[in-house]
Amino acid sequence: MSDCVFCDIVAGTAPASIAYQDDVVIAFMDIRPINHGQLVVIPRKHSTYLANMDEETGKHLFTVTARLVQAVRNSGVKCEGVNLLLADGEVAGQEIFHTHILVIPRFREDAFQVSAEWSTKPDRDELDEAAARISRAYQLLH
Amino acid sequence: MSDCVFCDIVAGTAPASIAYQDDVVIAFMDIRPINHGQLVVIPRKHSTYLANMDEETGKHLFTVTARLVQAVRNSGVKCEGVNLLLADGEVAGQEIFHTHILVIPRFREDAFQVSAEWSTKPDRDELDEAAARISRAYQLLH
Repeated sequence: MSDCVFCDIVAGTAPASIAYQDDVVIAFMDIRPINHGQLVVIPRKHSTYLANMDEETGKHLFTVTARLVQAVRNSGVKCEGVNLLLADGEVAGQEIFHTHILVIPRFREDAFQVSAEWSTKPDRDELDEAAARISRAYQLLH
Repeated sequence: MSDCVFCDIVAGTAPASIAYQDDVVIAFMDIRPINHGQLVVIPRKHSTYLANMDEETGKHLFTVTARLVQAVRNSGVKCEGVNLLLADGEVAGQEIFHTHILVIPRFREDAFQVSAEWSTKPDRDELDEAAARISRAYQLLH
C-alpha cells in the first residue's frame, strides 16, 4: 500500500467499483457519496493538486468526465441533473490529495446544498480590478 | 440582446470584467460570487448543457480553467484553495443555461459550505451494481 488511497486503487491494491478505465484515467464509485451513483474520476498518475497535473492528462480527464455525465444520466441511477466538483487544496474541502473530479447525480429535493454569504455584491470597479490582477497573473504563468 | 446573458457577454453587448479570452473561451468575474475573485469560464459558442458542447471545446475550456486556478492563486486575490463547480441542469443549481465552470477562491473560515446527508454508506454490492450500470451506459454513448 502507498500513502495515497487513490494510487492504491490504480494499483489494484485497494477495492473499488470501477465504472470506467483507460490508460490515463479511472472512474470509480464514491464510497461516501452525496447521492447514490456518485463517481470519482482520477488520473492514474498521482498529482496532489491541479498544478501538478500535465495539461494533456487534464484534457482527457475532462473529456471522460463529460462522457460519464451522460453515462450516469442514461444509466438508470436516479439523476435529473449533475454537478461536477473539484477541490484543490485543504481549505477547499480536498480530503484525498490526488486530483479528482466528483460527478454528483442530482435530483429534486435531494439533500445536497451549497450555502454562502450571497449578500456581498462587488461593484464594477472591484470586478475590473480583480480581472486585471488575474489577467496579469495568467500572463506570467509558464 | 439575445436571450442568453453569457452570449451577450461574448458578443460584447452585456458588461463583463474579462480576465481572459481567446478564440474559444472567455473568463470573466462573477457578479454574484461566493467569494471575491470568483470567475465564470465559458465557451464562446452557446451550449445549454455539457452534452451539447463538443469535446475539443471542452478540452480547451478545462485547460484554461486549470491555468486560471493558478492565476487566481498568484493574483493577490485572497485564495488559499480553489473549488471548481459546474452545474448541469436546473436541479443541479444551473441558473444560466450556457455551459460554464465556476472558479471559486477559498480561504479559511469563508462562508461557503456544502451540506448533504452523509450518513448513507452504500455497500459494495450497491456500488458494484451502479458501476456496472454506468459502464454499460458509457459503452452505448456515441
